Amino acid sequence: MKSFVYHVPTKVYFGEGQLCHLGEELKQCGKKVLLSYGGGSIKKSGLYDLLLEEMKKANLEVFELAGIEPNPRIESVREGARLCKQHDIDVVLAVGGGSTIDAAKFIAAGACTDDDPWDFFVAGAPIDKALPLITVLTLSATGSEMDSCGVISNMETNDKLARYSDHVFPKVSFLDPTLTYTVNEYQTACGSADILSHIFEVYFNMNKDLYMLDTVMEGLMRTVIKYAPIALREPENYEARANLMWASSWAINGFINGGKQQAWSCHPMEHVLSAYYDITHGLGLAILTPRWMKYCLDETRVSKFYQFGVNVFGIDASLEPLEVAERAIEELSTFFFRTLGLKSRLSEVGIDDTHFEQMSQKACKGGVLAGFKPLGKEDIKKIFERCL
Amino acid sequence: MKSFVYHVPTKVYFGEGQLCHLGEELKQCGKKVLLSYGGGSIKKSGLYDLLLEEMKKANLEVFELAGIEPNPRIESVREGARLCKQHDIDVVLAVGGGSTIDAAKFIAAGACTDDDPWDFFVAGAPIDKALPLITVLTLSATGSEMDSCGVISNMETNDKLARYSDHVFPKVSFLDPTLTYTVNEYQTACGSADILSHIFEVYFNMNKDLYMLDTVMEGLMRTVIKYAPIALREPENYEARANLMWASSWAINGFINGGKQQAWSCHPMEHVLSAYYDITHGLGLAILTPRWMKYCLDETRVSKFYQFGVNVFGIDASLEPLEVAERAIEELSTFFFRTLGLKSRLSEVGIDDTHFEQMSQKACKGGVLAGFKPLGKEDIKKIFERCL
Repeated sequence: MKSFVYHVPTKVYFGEGQLCHLGEELKQCGKKVLLSYGGGSIKKSGLYDLLLEEMKKANLEVFELAGIEPNPRIESVREGARLCKQHDIDVVLAVGGGSTIDAAKFIAAGACTDDDPWDFFVAGAPIDKALPLITVLTLSATGSEMDSCGVISNMETNDKLARYSDHVFPKVSFLDPTLTYTVNEYQTACGSADILSHIFEVYFNMNKDLYMLDTVMEGLMRTVIKYAPIALREPENYEARANLMWASSWAINGFINGGKQQAWSCHPMEHVLSAYYDITHGLGLAILTPRWMKYCLDETRVSKFYQFGVNVFGIDASLEPLEVAERAIEELSTFFFRTLGLKSRLSEVGIDDTHFEQMSQKACKGGVLAGFKPLGKEDIKKIFERCL
Repeated sequence: MKSFVYHVPTKVYFGEGQLCHLGEELKQCGKKVLLSYGGGSIKKSGLYDLLLEEMKKANLEVFELAGIEPNPRIESVREGARLCKQHDIDVVLAVGGGSTIDAAKFIAAGACTDDDPWDFFVAGAPIDKALPLITVLTLSATGSEMDSCGVISNMETNDKLARYSDHVFPKVSFLDPTLTYTVNEYQTACGSADILSHIFEVYFNMNKDLYMLDTVMEGLMRTVIKYAPIALREPENYEARANLMWASSWAINGFINGGKQQAWSCHPMEHVLSAYYDITHGLGLAILTPRWMKYCLDETRVSKFYQFGVNVFGIDASLEPLEVAERAIEELSTFFFRTLGLKSRLSEVGIDDTHFEQMSQKACKGGVLAGFKPLGKEDIKKIFERCL
């Protein structure tokens, strides 16, 4: 257990009906709100009207930025930052899933600087402050509602890049599981794959000294595996939606880190997939993960897969470690591609090997992804090929 | 999963050597520090000198309050608050275990009001603000380093009372597992019993909808059960001390709550034990817990004990639920009284039934403890009697 600093300042209102506290929280930040959201789903669901009503009751002045894209674009971030400056906005309110919240983080930061927001990602532009950010979560997936990271895409340059800053932690997040009742099967499945992947990125490591966090992560994985299928069958099952929602935050908010080796593997590979093909993040992760696992499985790493198989899938602990490991990867594939019904191959979503050379180069930035198993460009290319 | 608000603003520096950040964190709060601690152990261990050196490097002016008692007394809190006012203190630095940190919380609050600090506990005196509090933890037990609660004793009135306030959350806590290397066997055992009890108080409830947090709590319990014996055998085992230390914070910092029924049972009973007899908190909890469990075990509650037995102690899931439940309680007794070597009966620590009548009355404040199984005065008295 290496040294680490833990600090998650976000306040969370969890549960049905908590939006009654929205007005009071926004008012503490000021008068002028930039409401940012994605497509029209929040209007269809009635959430938009509810939010406006709460803000009206609190005498807030509301400006809007609609149309934040899945895999949010730098153009939206620029436009949001411009609106904040133009209208002297006090607080950003992001309503949606990870894409909307990620964009809002850099809108809030972009509002406080003269730098172009894309420079946060490619030129190391400093983030010294940001407007306060309040979020209303409508999709359990990225955990952006409780972390200090965001990922923004630039389709001109085929880049999808992440940036961290303590200044972009949401100040307050509203997690009402009933707001995810309308999330369709496909998005529920992709979101669940994303949650699992966040846990895998931390869980699969070569350290062996943090038993406690392993038990926590195994519990979170079992939670997703138990409740995602229930949410698919019964989209309005509160217990399932609540467990998935809180698990999505825990998977990435820093609770489970504890000084583990933090180099990720599948996420950087997926980010180039999305940057070239704009596919859904969780789908890309689901396709990549079992192939990545098989690629990593060797003598030095088999014990972690064994632990995963026994503690998460309940595979017979008396079997040979290698057999347990292989069965565990098989169980995970079955979960993604049968239980959740996700497509299992890149070729099924219109992706061929045209750009694999450049994509592999970008994923490791020309060097090595220093995760569970260090991966160079050729390794990554092989994993992409196995996903075809 | 009921509605809840999650907010744990404490920043944690975890790991060996993190005290190099102490000066910078204190300096952010001001110039004048009140250093409060318990007995002389921090002088013997060299920690005291290290702290003074760090504070000297940061040009801080240090005042001292030594001698905070186990089961800290209201007199110490009063004296600390007085010192803060007299010297215009900017920040309180508590170095020790839960007793020192608990006292420091109300010293920090007492410094900001003209009310007598005991009125925080008996007269509902408001806590509108508090001096910033920074802690250096030297004992894994109470979790006070990361929560908003403290318990103070008044031996004149035989009261040991708790108070919560968001204003007394430590701003920063330093968790260096090597600082617990010198904790002796008895205190290590009592601390471990305290950690387990914090988890039990949340885990044993009648709600059935928060699978995720149950898995987390079961993992934390297994962690304590795995590492406490190792720490007893090898006091300088970093992995054991680190896992116990982080588990102690998680057991009570709010991570595991999630809207569960929060009425506690063993803690209020133990608090009257300590208030009358000044016994070690963790020892009192260890003696009480298995008897409390047996008293609660009935048809409506057996399923939770079954889950506990299977998931924490690995008892054969195919056995009858009642048998699993009884075996689980037996396993826990064995853990407390054999593995940890704690005394198992009140009579062994010089406690008889002289005050059971008044103690039972005080534990439920003349009403009912509305925990896992609601307990009135007569119930509590019976549990005390079974502990003799």
